[in-house]
Amino acid sequence: MSDCIFCKIINGEIPSAKVYEDEHVYAFLDISQVTKGHTLVIPKAHHANIFELPEDLAGKLFAAVPKISNAVKKAYNPVGLNLLNNNGEQAYQTVFHYHLHIIPRYGNEDGFGLKWETHNDDYTPEQLQEIAETINKNI
Amino acid sequence: MSDCIFCKIINGEIPSAKVYEDEHVYAFLDISQVTKGHTLVIPKAHHANIFELPEDLAGKLFAAVPKISNAVKKAYNPVGLNLLNNNGEQAYQTVFHYHLHIIPRYGNEDGFGLKWETHNDDYTPEQLQEIAETINKNI
Ligand SMILES: [Zn+2]
Ligand SMILES: [Zn+2]
Repeated sequence: MSDCIFCKIINGEIPSAKVYEDEHVYAFLDISQVTKGHTLVIPKAHHANIFELPEDLAGKLFAAVPKISNAVKKAYNPVGLNLLNNNGEQAYQTVFHYHLHIIPRYGNEDGFGLKWETHNDDYTPEQLQEIAETINKNI
Repeated sequence: MSDCIFCKIINGEIPSAKVYEDEHVYAFLDISQVTKGHTLVIPKAHHANIFELPEDLAGKLFAAVPKISNAVKKAYNPVGLNLLNNNGEQAYQTVFHYHLHIIPRYGNEDGFGLKWETHNDDYTPEQLQEIAETINKNI
């Protein structure tokens, strides 16, 4: 897509710090490093988000993630690693070309963290079954 | 693995609210719903984390994610959706059977959020190239 910054990175119009490339997938450092080695994994084909990503391409993209994650681990020995993908502005997506963040972790006080409020008491087992069935019948 | 709660969910020893199942993948509601429809996608085979997940299985797992995400969208019309996978205790992993969180979003004040501190000025372009090469040569 002509106005897409990630399409321009893939075709070389905009430089990037490339980590990995294969036929369908490109990976490069996020220019705004949240932690050292913070990498974006993207499909070469332009798709805005997980809702629009074809299944076969989703599979090819994620097949590259264990090896990139292990390479980050070998390179910098993080204590953990988070994978994150944001879809939609209100879910913090800022570039509308699908991208998965690989965020190596170096402890609780590094640049990444979660707000995580669970609602264990809000749903009965029967209500959870109903939600699951509602999703399942839309597949 | 005999002591793994997710292996027990897959084999039916522990009940779950099942959202999706195929030959290699099982998806069910997180009993601690962060937002309504919060789903876990797991491989049927026991692997602790992304570092140990075989590439082909990673591909099969993620190939199921667009259709589950779209089903969540059709069912509950969220404004966005986050995918998250935590690897390692310090990265918030609590069950050591690989699992990807699908977290539908209903606005900024729902149960999920990020701490996200970028470090744009900490690295020169040359330093970013060096980091990328260090990771790349470990692939
Ligand atoms: Zn693009
Ligand atoms: Zn298990």
